Amino acid sequence: MIAQNWKCSECGFVAIGLFPPDACPKCQAPRSSFEHKHEWRFPEEEAEDIINACWKVTYGLYIVSSIDGERINGQICNTVFQITSDPPRIAIGINHNNLTHEFIEKSGVFAVSILGTGDHRMVRRFGYRSGREFDKFKGVPIIRKRTGCPAYEGAVGYIECTVIEDKTIDAGTHSIFLGEIVGGACFKDEEPMSYAYFHATKDER
Amino acid sequence: MIAQNWKCSECGFVAIGLFPPDACPKCQAPRSSFEHKHEWRFPEEEAEDIINACWKVTYGLYIVSSIDGERINGQICNTVFQITSDPPRIAIGINHNNLTHEFIEKSGVFAVSILGTGDHRMVRRFGYRSGREFDKFKGVPIIRKRTGCPAYEGAVGYIECTVIEDKTIDAGTHSIFLGEIVGGACFKDEEPMSYAYFHATKDER
Repeated sequence: MIAQNWKCSECGFVAIGLFPPDACPKCQAPRSSFEHKHEWRFPEEEAEDIINACWKVTYGLYIVSSIDGERINGQICNTVFQITSDPPRIAIGINHNNLTHEFIEKSGVFAVSILGTGDHRMVRRFGYRSGREFDKFKGVPIIRKRTGCPAYEGAVGYIECTVIEDKTIDAGTHSIFLGEIVGGACFKDEEPMSYAYFHATKDER
Repeated sequence: MIAQNWKCSECGFVAIGLFPPDACPKCQAPRSSFEHKHEWRFPEEEAEDIINACWKVTYGLYIVSSIDGERINGQICNTVFQITSDPPRIAIGINHNNLTHEFIEKSGVFAVSILGTGDHRMVRRFGYRSGREFDKFKGVPIIRKRTGCPAYEGAVGYIECTVIEDKTIDAGTHSIFLGEIVGGACFKDEEPMSYAYFHATKDER
């Protein structure tokens, strides 16, 4: 949430994180090529207080997954909400640079696996690396139903959607995809994991 | 979250709720004029399981407020998330029929007051009636800063935004507004109220 934008001055690639990457994943330029610029519309001296207020917004933690032909991938996402109930639709926010974004754009489908309070390991597995270098679903129990997107069977439940294409918003570094719910199920009776709960317990689990 | 769409067969007005309203707020047609139709893209027999999965998505509770000239209004909203950090932007979901939606469209500004675990009274005050019939902010301590939108001073904190106009999505019964953060502050150190916490405790508080 307080990660920053780091723009590669060689190729324009934007990396998100607390620090710039060791090397540009696109053009291999070194860390020193990355520049950081804020585009804030409030005075610098208010930034800390405003960012702290942003941290008080409540989120869950989810694996958002998609497909590209035979390939499957997923990533951790905290920005998922149901936006209408009839028809049932959800909105998700996904970073432009992520492999899952590429898959969702190509396939027009995604699934949301709702993580429970015991799923710390899954947050690390799906949140800390890119599917470009690592097969995140390898060995993870999944089901694939109507859209073909993998849902993590150990989750509290899942929802799968088709993207309503003309409704995608380019929000800057992220897209908001609007999805029509076409399937879903509950898998187990465990409390959903909140982002705040994960951060409060992650060093113990 | 499981409220339904009720469409007035006289004037087309769509009311949202577990039951149709006593009379149409737009044309005064009686309750019997309201029709209910699902537009689901999954078999009816899966609906309960899918809706139960949707209930596992985590939300906070917020007062979203806006202005129209001298008038101010606010409503309870659970669909607020930060979508980018640089520049800091948030997305909110608001029902088309609400007065706050009208104000946000006219003024292009809104504020989000982040409710704390002690704010049950405020959820009822701002969530159970319309600002068309009742001055919800009367007697409520507020501050008004950069946008002029009222923030509830008893909240955990607030964020105020200008709407990025060409980014609004019409999601069906609701709009998603994308807001550029232009101000905000923390007011007190209390746990934010989650939607789940409110439902679990609302009968005691």
